[in-house]
Amino acid sequence: MTDGVTAAHGTGGHGEPADAPVSAWVLGADSGGSGLRITLAAVPEGGAPQTVGTVTSTEPVRTGAQGIDAEHMLAQLVPAARELLERAGERAQAAGLRSVCVGAAGMATLGGQLRAELPAALTREFSVRRIALAADAVTAYAGALGQLPGAVVAGGTGLIAMGTDLRNWRRADGWGHLLGDCGSGAWIGQAGLQAAMRAYDGREGGSAALRERAEAVFGAPLSGLPAQLYPRTDRPAVLASFAPEVAACADRDTAASEILRAAAQEIATAAAAVCPAEEGVSVAVTGGLFRIGEPLLAPLREQLHRRAPHAHLTEPAGDPLDGALLIAARLSSDALRLPQDPALLSLT
Amino acid sequence: MTDGVTAAHGTGGHGEPADAPVSAWVLGADSGGSGLRITLAAVPEGGAPQTVGTVTSTEPVRTGAQGIDAEHMLAQLVPAARELLERAGERAQAAGLRSVCVGAAGMATLGGQLRAELPAALTREFSVRRIALAADAVTAYAGALGQLPGAVVAGGTGLIAMGTDLRNWRRADGWGHLLGDCGSGAWIGQAGLQAAMRAYDGREGGSAALRERAEAVFGAPLSGLPAQLYPRTDRPAVLASFAPEVAACADRDTAASEILRAAAQEIATAAAAVCPAEEGVSVAVTGGLFRIGEPLLAPLREQLHRRAPHAHLTEPAGDPLDGALLIAARLSSDALRLPQDPALLSLT
Repeated sequence: MTDGVTAAHGTGGHGEPADAPVSAWVLGADSGGSGLRITLAAVPEGGAPQTVGTVTSTEPVRTGAQGIDAEHMLAQLVPAARELLERAGERAQAAGLRSVCVGAAGMATLGGQLRAELPAALTREFSVRRIALAADAVTAYAGALGQLPGAVVAGGTGLIAMGTDLRNWRRADGWGHLLGDCGSGAWIGQAGLQAAMRAYDGREGGSAALRERAEAVFGAPLSGLPAQLYPRTDRPAVLASFAPEVAACADRDTAASEILRAAAQEIATAAAAVCPAEEGVSVAVTGGLFRIGEPLLAPLREQLHRRAPHAHLTEPAGDPLDGALLIAARLSSDALRLPQDPALLSLT
Repeated sequence: MTDGVTAAHGTGGHGEPADAPVSAWVLGADSGGSGLRITLAAVPEGGAPQTVGTVTSTEPVRTGAQGIDAEHMLAQLVPAARELLERAGERAQAAGLRSVCVGAAGMATLGGQLRAELPAALTREFSVRRIALAADAVTAYAGALGQLPGAVVAGGTGLIAMGTDLRNWRRADGWGHLLGDCGSGAWIGQAGLQAAMRAYDGREGGSAALRERAEAVFGAPLSGLPAQLYPRTDRPAVLASFAPEVAACADRDTAASEILRAAAQEIATAAAAVCPAEEGVSVAVTGGLFRIGEPLLAPLREQLHRRAPHAHLTEPAGDPLDGALLIAARLSSDALRLPQDPALLSLT
């Protein structure tokens, strides 16, 4: 289960010395399709959480008919937390955990069992006082922008935008590859493969470059592609796997660059829908989608400027695990300003 | 298995009297997702086939790892043909079947077992001399345009265009709901549901009217729609079920009418890609999609005129079962002019 333990290292950008007085020990967790990461951090008085160790499991927490399986998560979370406290030394073990934040994909709709069982179990095991259960889009937000008002777009195979004025959360998209996820990796890859099929047919709107890339990846002739794609259960991931090919063609193929421009427009539209109106708020984009880089980011800056001219695009400070730690740290000192929400960010 | 036998009735538009001398008895079959229809027809010398009886089964022929299951098809086809010959009387039984045409969805890619086993089995059972195995898009073509050069678009949950200059077949789209089927029922329904989700989010491009219809059909709030759609195995059909709602909103909602206009453009694009260049060729559209009527047909006429001005849109003469009968009838008198193709129209 436990696949790796990283050495202690600082995460914060605030540069507290490692020997500043620790006011609390906190735990952050990030659960998603690729597994579970759990980090222990020391929080200096009024400062940023300092990571002291991380445990990574590549076994994703199961989802069953009752939603995300609380028992399966606890079976990974509890031993990992014990191991991290032990490695952190006597001071940490004596103090115990002041707070925990667990961020999980699917928390909003499939987190009922977690909300019902996790807090009591963690209190029983670690005498922990304050527990936050967060949607992964909320930990992505906190990781990227901390407690500032603004909007964060998290993009990978899917895509969701989350915004807050620190009173309420607003969400846009994240509805999956058939109902939305507009501008996501699956969306870009699908548009690229459709342009390849158009070229194969001789239909208007096709791209010879994308057809060539699709044949290189999936084999020629492309009439064999449906039989490869439809029987799979991870169809969105297969579609998303073609997104980097679209990006690689963008500098020499009009269809490819238009797909990225359209994706940028969708991403900016989702960000604008959730972004607070106040002047100077921050917008950040985070997640594997944006590794595409300039072919996507250049039109995105342009579209964001058009749709939310009052906002400015900033680099995300950290990832969802950093966000979970930040929520846990702020919770430990009663300084959490991100709004509570029964589905998105519930506190015990 | 046998769900209905219709009374004898004529199909042809040529008005041969029912007592014209019969030159041959032929069988046509149409196999698809909603079941199997089998028709016996009498072919007068040089005339159009006259239906004498039809057997309908609502049990779709199974598709397995080896493709369309030949044994399962024969288990329905053989008893139905016997029953139809018996009902047609002594003359038909004495003459036997001169030719058979079986049209099936998936024939091109999944018809290997049918091509290997069906001809020998039918010859053994009925001493039939000539057998044609056709893709459903080919029987749709023959049903709509007979043996004229042109293009036929068959639209339902999916969409495929087939064209011929009587030398070769050309195909466009029909790649399924993720890779194409652009302009199909699933495509229109999906675009409508995406516009509903946009309205729910407050994203640009949403439609309040489509949101209201989606809530009426799937329940409010629409945040529950993903959990209803994604676990289903018939997702394209669920998407297509919303297409009539989009059509019903088209006269009062800009987003809905734009979706139908975009669908019309896709349909015209597919037709133009397969339509022969010669002046005055016919284009026909057929299938359940076009029951949407004028909200789709009006922009389609306009788009077809723009993309294939040399072609003229004609009413389809009949459906795919009529097409299978026509192929069988022409085959019986060595007058088949539609081009042979190993995947699309194979003859024995």
